[in-house]
Amino acid sequence: MRSLPPPYHLAMETHLPTPWPAGHPDHFATVPLAHAYRLLNHGPTVLVSAGHDGVVNVMAAAWSMPLDFNPPKVAVVIDKSTFTRHLIEASGSFALNVPSRALAELTVGVGTESAMTNPAKLRLHGVRTFAASQVSAPLVQGCVGWLECRVLPEPHNQQTHDLFIGEVVAAWADPRVFHGGRWHFEQAPDHLRTLHYVAGGQFYATGQSVRVENDHS
Amino acid sequence: MRSLPPPYHLAMETHLPTPWPAGHPDHFATVPLAHAYRLLNHGPTVLVSAGHDGVVNVMAAAWSMPLDFNPPKVAVVIDKSTFTRHLIEASGSFALNVPSRALAELTVGVGTESAMTNPAKLRLHGVRTFAASQVSAPLVQGCVGWLECRVLPEPHNQQTHDLFIGEVVAAWADPRVFHGGRWHFEQAPDHLRTLHYVAGGQFYATGQSVRVENDHS
Repeated sequence: MRSLPPPYHLAMETHLPTPWPAGHPDHFATVPLAHAYRLLNHGPTVLVSAGHDGVVNVMAAAWSMPLDFNPPKVAVVIDKSTFTRHLIEASGSFALNVPSRALAELTVGVGTESAMTNPAKLRLHGVRTFAASQVSAPLVQGCVGWLECRVLPEPHNQQTHDLFIGEVVAAWADPRVFHGGRWHFEQAPDHLRTLHYVAGGQFYATGQSVRVENDHS
Repeated sequence: MRSLPPPYHLAMETHLPTPWPAGHPDHFATVPLAHAYRLLNHGPTVLVSAGHDGVVNVMAAAWSMPLDFNPPKVAVVIDKSTFTRHLIEASGSFALNVPSRALAELTVGVGTESAMTNPAKLRLHGVRTFAASQVSAPLVQGCVGWLECRVLPEPHNQQTHDLFIGEVVAAWADPRVFHGGRWHFEQAPDHLRTLHYVAGGQFYATGQSVRVENDHS
């Protein structure tokens, strides 16, 4: 029997060693689109993933934010030097994955190293992914929130500001820490808290809940 | 002696009861422009302030992020319904103030109420300000970081996405929690930690420091 042509672009080693798409994590629930912005509202550092023609990559980004409620949109800064940007431009989509504290080392790893110079970076940093529902970008295992996004093409923003705007077409979260449209970190183990990058390999984890009474917003 | 003409637009009550400009806080230090993005890198909720012709206002914004390193730029989403937006458009400047945990109630207050319907909102919520160095926007007392910004006019972004891009022309921080180009919350009282908004009057404070070793970024 003749071999089938390889499913991946073998010149790049950024594809994953495990079959892709694979199954989603055990702790995985739908987030209604109207609540998708809440995954980013508290300003976590994210992993930006993208895939095209079987080649995937993941990078870290401290600069992202919600841009609109419904339909939900997000904005994220993606430097021209990144391989992930090429995959985003080729595929017209990306995903924002919200890493937990347990992924701090992985986040620094994929944020420091580039697939341009180290095509095996995902494997080296233990990145495991699974298939998204709507876009070619893979989703990263071990995260606690995921936003699948279609690029809204904005050449000026992309060229001048490295700013990509995406419409969120599907959103998911780990229901141990996100349910009822908001985060509930205080009800779960500390390793599921999200991360906020400072510099030089240092983050702050999301901390104590602070409630202001008599508010009806 | 004849009274001098009033320095403020008296039809609006959004000006402050105390003389403006006033002195800066006791804990106040310059942040070099190359480090200004670090004030926002961890994703805090901010207070957006603006001033024009002696009329000032302050609102809360969960959607802001750094956009470039040097010269530093920031992006912030400012709805068309806000009075602050009118002041920004009239003056061509704004400031992003990073509130501490001690200002949680004030932040929800100025984020919920509009000066459009309640011109006395700053006074009601106990907002005290002092003069910025480069822009007409006032800076908010009790915050732990301040970025003075000049609007880089982008009509498409402003109209379509309510997205304002500013160049940071001066930056300041409370040296008890920010020095040497980064936050050091673990060395200061908890009430100086920054805030990350969730919804319905709830924030998460910035939490524990998480360090990844062997990183040289």
